[in-house]
Amino acid sequence: MKVLAISGSLRTASINSALLRAAVRLSPPEVQVRFFDAAGELPLFNPDLEAQLPPRVAALHGEIESSDALLIASPEYAHGVTGTIKNVLDWLVSFEPFINKPVAVFNASPRARHADEALRETLRTMSAVIVEESSVSIPLLGARLTEDAMVEDPVVSRAVRSALQALHRAVVLRDSEQGPTFPLP
Amino acid sequence: MKVLAISGSLRTASINSALLRAAVRLSPPEVQVRFFDAAGELPLFNPDLEAQLPPRVAALHGEIESSDALLIASPEYAHGVTGTIKNVLDWLVSFEPFINKPVAVFNASPRARHADEALRETLRTMSAVIVEESSVSIPLLGARLTEDAMVEDPVVSRAVRSALQALHRAVVLRDSEQGPTFPLP
Repeated sequence: MKVLAISGSLRTASINSALLRAAVRLSPPEVQVRFFDAAGELPLFNPDLEAQLPPRVAALHGEIESSDALLIASPEYAHGVTGTIKNVLDWLVSFEPFINKPVAVFNASPRARHADEALRETLRTMSAVIVEESSVSIPLLGARLTEDAMVEDPVVSRAVRSALQALHRAVVLRDSEQGPTFPLP
Repeated sequence: MKVLAISGSLRTASINSALLRAAVRLSPPEVQVRFFDAAGELPLFNPDLEAQLPPRVAALHGEIESSDALLIASPEYAHGVTGTIKNVLDWLVSFEPFINKPVAVFNASPRARHADEALRETLRTMSAVIVEESSVSIPLLGARLTEDAMVEDPVVSRAVRSALQALHRAVVLRDSEQGPTFPLP
Protein backbone atom coordinates (compact mmCIF):
# COMPACT_ATOMS: atom_id res chain seq x y z
CA MET A 1 0.00 0.00 0.00
CA LYS A 2 1.31 3.41 -0.96
CA VAL A 3 0.67 6.42 1.31
CA LEU A 4 1.51 10.01 0.39
CA ALA A 5 2.32 12.15 3.45
CA ILE A 6 1.57 15.86 3.13
CA SER A 7 2.67 18.47 5.66
CA GLY A 8 0.93 21.82 6.00
CA SER A 9 4.09 23.56 7.20
CA LEU A 10 7.12 24.62 5.19
CA ARG A 11 9.23 25.38 8.25
CA THR A 12 12.45 23.33 8.28
CA ALA A 13 12.00 22.46 11.95
CA SER A 14 8.24 21.82 11.64
CA ILE A 15 7.06 19.16 14.09
CA ASN A 16 4.32 18.19 11.64
CA SER A 17 6.88 17.51 8.91
CA ALA A 18 9.10 15.72 11.41
CA LEU A 19 6.17 13.52 12.42
CA LEU A 20 5.47 12.57 8.81
CA ARG A 21 9.15 11.87 8.12
CA ALA A 22 9.16 9.70 11.23
CA ALA A 23 6.13 7.89 9.80
CA VAL A 24 8.16 7.13 6.66
CA ARG A 25 10.71 5.34 8.85
CA LEU A 26 8.19 3.71 11.18
CA SER A 27 5.89 2.27 8.53
CA PRO A 28 5.21 -1.45 8.79
CA PRO A 29 6.39 -3.65 5.88
CA GLU A 30 2.99 -3.67 4.18
CA VAL A 31 2.86 0.15 4.02
CA GLN A 32 5.14 2.42 1.99
CA VAL A 33 4.94 6.07 3.10
CA ARG A 34 6.38 8.78 0.87
CA PHE A 35 6.86 12.37 2.08
CA PHE A 36 5.55 14.95 -0.39
CA ASP A 37 8.23 17.61 -0.40
CA ALA A 38 6.87 19.95 -3.10
CA ALA A 39 3.97 21.65 -1.33
CA GLY A 40 5.98 24.87 -1.14
CA GLU A 41 6.65 24.84 -4.87
CA LEU A 42 3.04 24.67 -6.02
CA PRO A 43 1.66 27.85 -7.53
CA LEU A 44 -1.27 29.42 -5.71
CA PHE A 45 -4.51 27.88 -6.95
CA ASN A 46 -6.08 29.54 -9.95
CA PRO A 47 -9.07 27.89 -11.64
CA ASP A 48 -8.03 29.50 -14.93
CA LEU A 49 -4.96 27.23 -14.97
CA GLU A 50 -6.93 23.98 -14.63
CA ALA A 51 -7.35 23.66 -18.41
CA GLN A 52 -3.57 23.41 -18.80
CA LEU A 53 -2.05 22.38 -15.50
CA PRO A 54 1.28 23.81 -14.33
CA PRO A 55 3.89 20.98 -14.28
CA ARG A 56 4.16 20.92 -10.48
CA VAL A 57 0.39 20.54 -10.13
CA ALA A 58 0.37 17.76 -12.73
CA ALA A 59 3.08 16.03 -10.67
CA LEU A 60 0.93 16.37 -7.51
CA HIS A 61 -2.02 14.87 -9.36
CA GLY A 62 0.14 11.95 -10.48
CA GLU A 63 1.27 11.29 -6.92
CA ILE A 64 -2.29 11.44 -5.58
CA GLU A 65 -3.51 9.07 -8.27
CA SER A 66 -0.81 6.50 -7.58
CA SER A 67 -1.36 6.59 -3.80
CA ASP A 68 -3.77 4.26 -2.02
CA ALA A 69 -4.18 6.67 0.87
CA LEU A 70 -3.03 10.04 2.19
CA LEU A 71 -1.60 11.09 5.52
CA ILE A 72 -1.89 14.76 6.46
CA ALA A 73 -0.33 16.67 9.37
CA SER A 74 -0.70 20.42 9.48
CA PRO A 75 -0.32 23.13 12.11
CA GLU A 76 -2.88 25.77 13.02
CA TYR A 77 -2.09 29.39 12.11
CA ALA A 78 -4.27 32.08 13.71
CA HIS A 79 -7.11 29.62 14.41
CA GLY A 80 -7.16 28.47 10.78
CA VAL A 81 -5.66 25.92 8.42
CA THR A 82 -2.37 26.97 6.87
CA GLY A 83 -2.50 28.57 3.46
CA THR A 84 -0.07 25.89 2.32
CA ILE A 85 -2.27 22.87 3.13
CA LYS A 86 -5.40 24.58 1.78
CA ASN A 87 -3.56 25.43 -1.42
CA VAL A 88 -2.65 21.76 -1.92
CA LEU A 89 -6.30 20.80 -1.37
CA ASP A 90 -7.63 23.60 -3.62
CA TRP A 91 -5.71 22.00 -6.51
CA LEU A 92 -7.44 18.67 -5.74
CA VAL A 93 -11.05 19.86 -5.45
CA SER A 94 -11.83 19.13 -9.09
CA PHE A 95 -9.48 16.15 -9.36
CA GLU A 96 -11.64 13.05 -9.67
CA PRO A 97 -9.11 10.49 -8.29
CA PHE A 98 -9.24 12.34 -4.96
CA ILE A 99 -12.83 11.22 -4.44
CA ASN A 100 -13.15 8.37 -1.92
CA LYS A 101 -9.44 8.57 -1.15
CA PRO A 102 -8.79 7.29 2.39
CA VAL A 103 -7.11 10.02 4.44
CA ALA A 104 -5.55 9.91 7.90
CA VAL A 105 -5.24 13.24 9.70
CA PHE A 106 -2.52 13.36 12.36
CA ASN A 107 -2.92 16.11 14.93
CA ALA A 108 0.34 17.11 16.57
CA SER A 109 -1.31 20.00 18.46
CA PRO A 110 -4.40 18.57 20.17
CA ARG A 111 -5.41 22.02 21.41
CA ALA A 112 -5.56 23.34 17.82
CA ARG A 113 -9.18 22.39 17.22
CA HIS A 114 -10.13 25.13 14.72
CA ALA A 115 -7.71 23.99 12.04
CA ASP A 116 -8.40 20.31 12.67
CA GLU A 117 -12.17 20.83 12.30
CA ALA A 118 -11.81 23.05 9.22
CA LEU A 119 -9.46 20.57 7.57
CA ARG A 120 -11.88 17.71 8.21
CA GLU A 121 -14.86 19.74 6.93
CA THR A 122 -12.98 20.47 3.69
CA LEU A 123 -11.88 16.85 3.27
CA ARG A 124 -15.44 15.62 3.76
CA THR A 125 -16.73 18.22 1.31
CA MET A 126 -14.18 16.95 -1.22
CA SER A 127 -15.56 13.41 -0.68
CA ALA A 128 -12.39 12.04 0.86
CA VAL A 129 -12.87 9.24 3.39
CA ILE A 130 -11.40 10.23 6.76
CA VAL A 131 -10.15 7.06 8.45
CA GLU A 132 -10.89 7.79 12.10
CA GLU A 133 -8.87 4.86 13.51
CA SER A 134 -5.81 6.38 11.82
CA SER A 135 -6.55 10.01 12.62
CA VAL A 136 -4.92 10.37 16.00
CA SER A 137 -3.46 12.98 18.26
CA ILE A 138 0.21 12.21 18.70
CA PRO A 139 1.60 13.09 22.14
CA LEU A 140 4.56 15.25 21.12
CA LEU A 141 5.81 16.43 24.46
CA GLY A 142 9.15 17.38 25.92
CA ALA A 143 12.03 15.84 24.00
CA ARG A 144 9.94 14.15 21.34
CA LEU A 145 10.09 17.04 18.87
CA THR A 146 12.60 15.89 16.29
CA GLU A 147 12.24 13.15 13.72
CA ASP A 148 14.92 10.99 15.37
CA ALA A 149 13.39 11.46 18.83
CA MET A 150 9.94 10.51 17.50
CA VAL A 151 11.28 7.36 15.88
CA GLU A 152 13.04 6.36 19.10
CA ASP A 153 10.22 7.27 21.47
CA PRO A 154 8.16 4.17 22.35
CA VAL A 155 4.87 6.07 22.81
CA VAL A 156 5.11 8.06 19.57
CA SER A 157 6.41 5.19 17.47
CA ARG A 158 3.66 2.88 18.73
CA ALA A 159 0.96 5.49 17.97
CA VAL A 160 2.29 6.07 14.45
CA ARG A 161 2.63 2.34 13.67
CA SER A 162 -0.87 1.61 14.97
CA ALA A 163 -2.31 4.43 12.86
CA LEU A 164 -0.61 3.16 9.72
CA GLN A 165 -1.75 -0.39 10.39
CA ALA A 166 -5.32 0.86 10.81
CA LEU A 167 -4.97 2.80 7.55
CA HIS A 168 -3.82 -0.39 5.83
CA ARG A 169 -6.80 -2.31 7.20
CA ALA A 170 -9.17 0.43 6.00
CA VAL A 171 -7.75 0.33 2.48
CA VAL A 172 -7.89 -3.48 2.33
CA LEU A 173 -11.45 -3.44 3.62
CA ARG A 174 -12.50 -0.78 1.13
CA ASP A 175 -10.96 -2.71 -1.74
CA SER A 176 -12.71 -5.93 -0.66
CA GLU A 177 -16.05 -4.11 -0.29
CA GLN A 178 -15.74 -2.73 -3.79
CA GLY A 179 -15.64 -6.39 -4.84
CA PRO A 180 -13.98 -7.99 -7.80
CA THR A 181 -14.04 -6.10 -11.06
CA PHE A 182 -15.08 -9.20 -13.01
CA PRO A 183 -17.94 -11.63 -12.40
CA LEU A 184 -17.06 -14.60 -10.24
CA PRO A 185 -17.39 -17.95 -11.99
CA MET B 1 -8.47 57.44 4.09
CA LYS B 2 -6.60 54.65 2.28
CA VAL B 3 -8.19 51.21 1.95
CA LEU B 4 -6.37 48.18 0.54
CA ALA B 5 -8.75 45.71 -1.15
CA ILE B 6 -7.65 42.06 -1.13
CA SER B 7 -9.37 39.31 -3.13
CA GLY B 8 -9.10 35.65 -2.20
CA SER B 9 -9.54 34.49 -5.78
CA LEU B 10 -7.00 34.61 -8.60
CA ARG B 11 -9.55 33.75 -11.29
CA THR B 12 -9.72 36.45 -13.98
CA ALA B 13 -13.53 36.43 -13.95
CA SER B 14 -13.76 36.23 -10.13
CA ILE B 15 -16.88 37.98 -8.85
CA ASN B 16 -15.04 38.77 -5.61
CA SER B 17 -12.28 40.56 -7.52
CA ALA B 18 -14.87 42.29 -9.70
CA LEU B 19 -16.68 43.48 -6.57
CA LEU B 20 -13.48 44.96 -5.13
CA ARG B 21 -12.57 46.61 -8.44
CA ALA B 22 -16.08 48.05 -8.50
CA ALA B 23 -15.46 49.36 -4.97
CA VAL B 24 -12.37 51.19 -6.28
CA ARG B 25 -14.63 53.04 -8.73
CA LEU B 26 -17.54 53.52 -6.33
CA SER B 27 -15.57 54.89 -3.39
CA PRO B 28 -16.75 58.23 -2.02
CA PRO B 29 -14.31 61.18 -2.26
CA GLU B 30 -13.04 60.76 1.30
CA VAL B 31 -12.00 57.13 0.68
CA GLN B 32 -9.28 55.91 -1.66
CA VAL B 33 -9.53 52.17 -2.39
CA ARG B 34 -6.59 50.37 -3.99
CA PHE B 35 -6.88 46.83 -5.37
CA PHE B 36 -4.03 44.57 -4.24
CA ASP B 37 -3.11 42.66 -7.37
CA ALA B 38 -0.11 40.68 -6.12
CA ALA B 39 -1.74 38.01 -3.93
CA GLY B 40 -0.96 35.39 -6.56
CA GLU B 41 2.71 36.33 -6.62
CA LEU B 42 3.39 35.90 -2.90
CA PRO B 43 5.43 32.85 -1.99
CA LEU B 44 3.73 30.30 0.24
CA PHE B 45 4.21 31.27 3.87
CA ASN B 46 7.32 29.91 5.51
CA PRO B 47 8.25 31.14 9.01
CA ASP B 48 11.93 30.53 8.21
CA LEU B 49 11.78 33.40 5.71
CA GLU B 50 10.47 35.96 8.20
CA ALA B 51 14.00 36.95 9.26
CA GLN B 52 14.75 38.14 5.73
CA LEU B 53 11.46 38.81 3.97
CA PRO B 54 11.04 37.98 0.26
CA PRO B 55 10.61 41.28 -1.68
CA ARG B 56 6.95 40.61 -2.54
CA VAL B 57 6.13 40.04 1.14
CA ALA B 58 7.98 43.20 2.13
CA ALA B 59 5.89 45.05 -0.47
CA LEU B 60 2.68 43.59 1.03
CA HIS B 61 3.80 44.71 4.49
CA GLY B 62 4.43 48.21 3.18
CA GLU B 63 0.96 48.37 1.65
CA ILE B 64 -0.68 47.14 4.86
CA GLU B 65 1.24 49.65 6.96
CA SER B 66 0.25 52.59 4.75
CA SER B 67 -3.44 51.60 4.67
CA ASP B 68 -5.95 52.89 7.20
CA ALA B 69 -8.24 49.92 6.64
CA LEU B 70 -8.58 46.70 4.64
CA LEU B 71 -11.40 45.37 2.51
CA ILE B 72 -11.50 41.61 1.91
CA ALA B 73 -13.69 39.58 -0.44
CA SER B 74 -12.98 35.90 -0.88
CA PRO B 75 -14.85 32.89 -2.21
CA GLU B 76 -15.39 29.58 -0.43
CA TYR B 77 -13.59 26.53 -1.77
CA ALA B 78 -14.75 23.14 -0.46
CA HIS B 79 -16.30 24.66 2.67
CA GLY B 80 -13.07 26.48 3.52
CA VAL B 81 -11.22 29.72 2.98
CA THR B 82 -9.12 29.82 -0.17
CA GLY B 83 -5.46 28.95 0.15
CA THR B 84 -4.73 32.30 -1.47
CA ILE B 85 -6.43 34.51 1.14
CA LYS B 86 -5.09 32.43 4.03
CA ASN B 87 -1.59 32.70 2.58
CA VAL B 88 -1.87 36.49 2.54
CA LEU B 89 -3.01 36.44 6.17
CA ASP B 90 -0.32 33.93 7.24
CA TRP B 91 2.29 36.48 6.15
CA LEU B 92 0.58 39.09 8.39
CA VAL B 93 0.20 37.05 11.59
CA SER B 94 3.46 38.32 13.07
CA PHE B 95 3.28 41.76 11.45
CA GLU B 96 2.66 44.26 14.21
CA PRO B 97 0.97 47.00 12.06
CA PHE B 98 -1.83 44.54 11.29
CA ILE B 99 -2.98 44.66 14.93
CA ASN B 100 -6.10 46.80 15.42
CA LYS B 101 -6.41 47.31 11.65
CA PRO B 102 -10.06 47.95 10.73
CA VAL B 103 -11.23 45.32 8.24
CA ALA B 104 -14.42 45.11 6.20
CA VAL B 105 -15.35 41.63 4.93
CA PHE B 106 -17.59 41.61 1.87
CA ASN B 107 -19.48 38.37 1.29
CA ALA B 108 -20.49 37.86 -2.32
CA SER B 109 -21.82 34.35 -1.61
CA PRO B 110 -24.12 34.62 1.40
CA ARG B 111 -24.64 30.84 1.49
CA ALA B 112 -20.90 30.29 1.91
CA ARG B 113 -20.91 30.49 5.69
CA HIS B 114 -17.97 28.16 6.46
CA ALA B 115 -15.37 30.36 4.76
CA ASP B 116 -16.91 33.57 6.09
CA GLU B 117 -16.84 32.27 9.67
CA ALA B 118 -13.32 30.87 9.36
CA LEU B 119 -12.04 34.12 7.86
CA ARG B 120 -13.59 36.13 10.69
CA GLU B 121 -12.21 33.77 13.34
CA THR B 122 -8.71 34.17 11.89
CA LEU B 123 -9.01 37.96 11.62
CA ARG B 124 -10.17 38.19 15.25
CA THR B 125 -7.33 35.91 16.35
CA MET B 126 -4.91 38.24 14.54
CA SER B 127 -6.39 41.18 16.51
CA ALA B 128 -7.86 42.90 13.49
CA VAL B 129 -11.01 44.94 14.13
CA ILE B 130 -13.87 43.65 11.97
CA VAL B 131 -16.11 46.62 11.14
CA GLU B 132 -19.55 45.01 11.13
CA GLU B 133 -21.38 47.98 9.54
CA SER B 134 -19.04 47.60 6.55
CA SER B 135 -19.07 43.81 6.41
CA VAL B 136 -22.06 43.16 4.24
CA SER B 137 -23.49 40.55 1.93
CA ILE B 138 -23.70 42.05 -1.54
CA PRO B 139 -26.66 40.84 -3.60
CA LEU B 140 -24.86 39.67 -6.74
CA LEU B 141 -27.67 38.14 -8.69
CA GLY B 142 -28.49 37.74 -12.33
CA ALA B 143 -26.70 40.25 -14.53
CA ARG B 144 -24.74 41.93 -11.74
CA LEU B 145 -21.66 39.72 -12.10
CA THR B 146 -19.17 41.94 -13.89
CA GLU B 147 -17.36 44.99 -12.57
CA ASP B 148 -19.17 47.32 -14.98
CA ALA B 149 -22.56 45.84 -14.13
CA MET B 150 -21.87 46.17 -10.42
CA VAL B 151 -20.90 49.83 -10.80
CA GLU B 152 -24.05 50.54 -12.80
CA ASP B 153 -26.43 48.53 -10.62
CA PRO B 154 -28.22 50.82 -8.13
CA VAL B 155 -28.57 48.14 -5.42
CA VAL B 156 -24.97 46.97 -5.57
CA SER B 157 -23.47 50.44 -5.89
CA ARG B 158 -25.51 51.72 -2.96
CA ALA B 159 -24.47 48.77 -0.78
CA VAL B 160 -20.79 49.24 -1.63
CA ARG B 161 -20.86 53.03 -1.07
CA SER B 162 -22.66 52.64 2.26
CA ALA B 163 -20.13 50.05 3.40
CA LEU B 164 -17.20 52.30 2.50
CA GLN B 165 -18.79 55.26 4.24
CA ALA B 166 -19.29 53.16 7.36
CA LEU B 167 -15.66 52.07 7.15
CA HIS B 168 -14.61 55.71 6.95
CA ARG B 169 -16.70 56.55 10.01
CA ALA B 170 -15.16 53.65 11.93
CA VAL B 171 -11.62 54.78 11.12
CA VAL B 172 -12.36 58.39 12.06
CA LEU B 173 -13.98 57.27 15.31
CA ARG B 174 -11.07 55.00 16.15
CA ASP B 175 -8.56 57.79 15.51
CA SER B 176 -10.54 60.22 17.67
CA GLU B 177 -10.79 57.65 20.48
CA GLN B 178 -7.05 57.13 20.41
CA GLY B 179 -6.83 60.83 21.17
CA PRO B 180 -4.17 63.34 20.20
CA THR B 181 -0.57 62.22 20.20
CA PHE B 182 0.55 65.35 22.08
CA PRO B 183 -0.82 66.96 25.26
CA LEU B 184 -3.50 69.60 24.69
CA PRO B 185 -2.53 73.08 25.89
